[in-house]
Amino acid sequence: MIFRQLYEELSSTYTYLIACEETGQAALIDPVYPSVERDLAIIRSLGLKLLYTIDTHIHADHITSAKRFKELTGSQIIFPVASQCDCPDLRAEEGRPLNVGGVTIDPLYTPGHTDDHYAYRVGDRIFTGDALLIEGCGRTDFQNGDSDTLYKTVREKLFSLPDDTLVYPGHDYQNRHVSSIAQEKQRNPRLGGTTTIEEFRQIMANLNLAYPKFIDHAVPGNQLCGVCPTDLPTKFNEYCAEMTESIQG
Amino acid sequence: MIFRQLYEELSSTYTYLIACEETGQAALIDPVYPSVERDLAIIRSLGLKLLYTIDTHIHADHITSAKRFKELTGSQIIFPVASQCDCPDLRAEEGRPLNVGGVTIDPLYTPGHTDDHYAYRVGDRIFTGDALLIEGCGRTDFQNGDSDTLYKTVREKLFSLPDDTLVYPGHDYQNRHVSSIAQEKQRNPRLGGTTTIEEFRQIMANLNLAYPKFIDHAVPGNQLCGVCPTDLPTKFNEYCAEMTESIQG
Repeated sequence: MIFRQLYEELSSTYTYLIACEETGQAALIDPVYPSVERDLAIIRSLGLKLLYTIDTHIHADHITSAKRFKELTGSQIIFPVASQCDCPDLRAEEGRPLNVGGVTIDPLYTPGHTDDHYAYRVGDRIFTGDALLIEGCGRTDFQNGDSDTLYKTVREKLFSLPDDTLVYPGHDYQNRHVSSIAQEKQRNPRLGGTTTIEEFRQIMANLNLAYPKFIDHAVPGNQLCGVCPTDLPTKFNEYCAEMTESIQG
Repeated sequence: MIFRQLYEELSSTYTYLIACEETGQAALIDPVYPSVERDLAIIRSLGLKLLYTIDTHIHADHITSAKRFKELTGSQIIFPVASQCDCPDLRAEEGRPLNVGGVTIDPLYTPGHTDDHYAYRVGDRIFTGDALLIEGCGRTDFQNGDSDTLYKTVREKLFSLPDDTLVYPGHDYQNRHVSSIAQEKQRNPRLGGTTTIEEFRQIMANLNLAYPKFIDHAVPGNQLCGVCPTDLPTKFNEYCAEMTESIQG
């Protein structure tokens, strides 16, 4: 398997390139709009054919480049099954593996950060999106997020994977790149150790986080599989608009 | 590939089991004397045949179980090439890969913690022994250790591996299990970022670490490929002697 962990600084998002060495077929997990050119250059330099873009959920902090990649490469858009939008070509659903050449990608339903969130398992790697971050987790106060649900997702589903499973998160804000299920069980201050569901509920209720600055643009844009709002305020230009010009130019 | 990261609490040592799924052939990197029974049970439960035990260096904090595994399973002992001892069956040397079924293990000469230290690369994983720890490194004040040499080992050799290479250390004392070359380049406070060789030399010269409590027993025991000293003080029994009785009984 060919594998690359790619980083988008503005939203601290990790995009993952997964490809089959034998067939050259590839998928991107959580590709980000301003990084289309970079991702495309890597795909081309490795001689790959992009089959799928796969989103873990409807993001609130960046615009997916799913639609843009479809236009540029003909790749198919895979979104969580219950997403309230008509644009995806395929819906991720647990029990229905995706094949990228000889590489199998297993969707795992992992709600709690949002109500329609999937992690993707590839061999001994799990791409956890915002359900489980390294020593953290996604917030649960928007998009039908729910702390009790996220607790069960992580403790009952993700923590039941083999201990050596590599955890690749959707974001990191401190230059951490990878963890393992064993490590998160031991070290995650919100969800590891003996933390109870009541304690987790309290932790999440008391985070006192600011209203996400880009959410009102990102969610509708992502429900269209990655469209930059036409009325985007200038201060958010770098989230998508400038790059659109760069690629189109 | 079959892979297990195993932990020995007394010396906070990670032992790695690597095996070929097709042939069932296996190797252990840095197996530890008191964990022989556990390791053997895992090997048996997976139906594996142990070909090799591979030590990254002559350890100062625990006794290797290389010799014990040879007695129990017929496995061959692999030690660094210049080790001052006659007991190894094979010597690790850079440029001479080891094959465990279809799995290739590449020795990388990584001196500095000791003068005869090897890391082992398996695909996109590097088993760094004590040359590079997660956000740390092995001390350089014993066994012909040398800070300048270790700096070059890490910065010029290990950090030139692809960024996504997974770093599996020989020890961790804070329940961290895995890192990546990119992560260590960014986060390692001793060797990452813009740290110069002069700064690293100063850091290592000022660690003020205690004399290693077990070194005077461990080094001679390991130079015999894993022999528990007969004159072991009672306080060190758990480092090897008790387990010997347990297995023999």
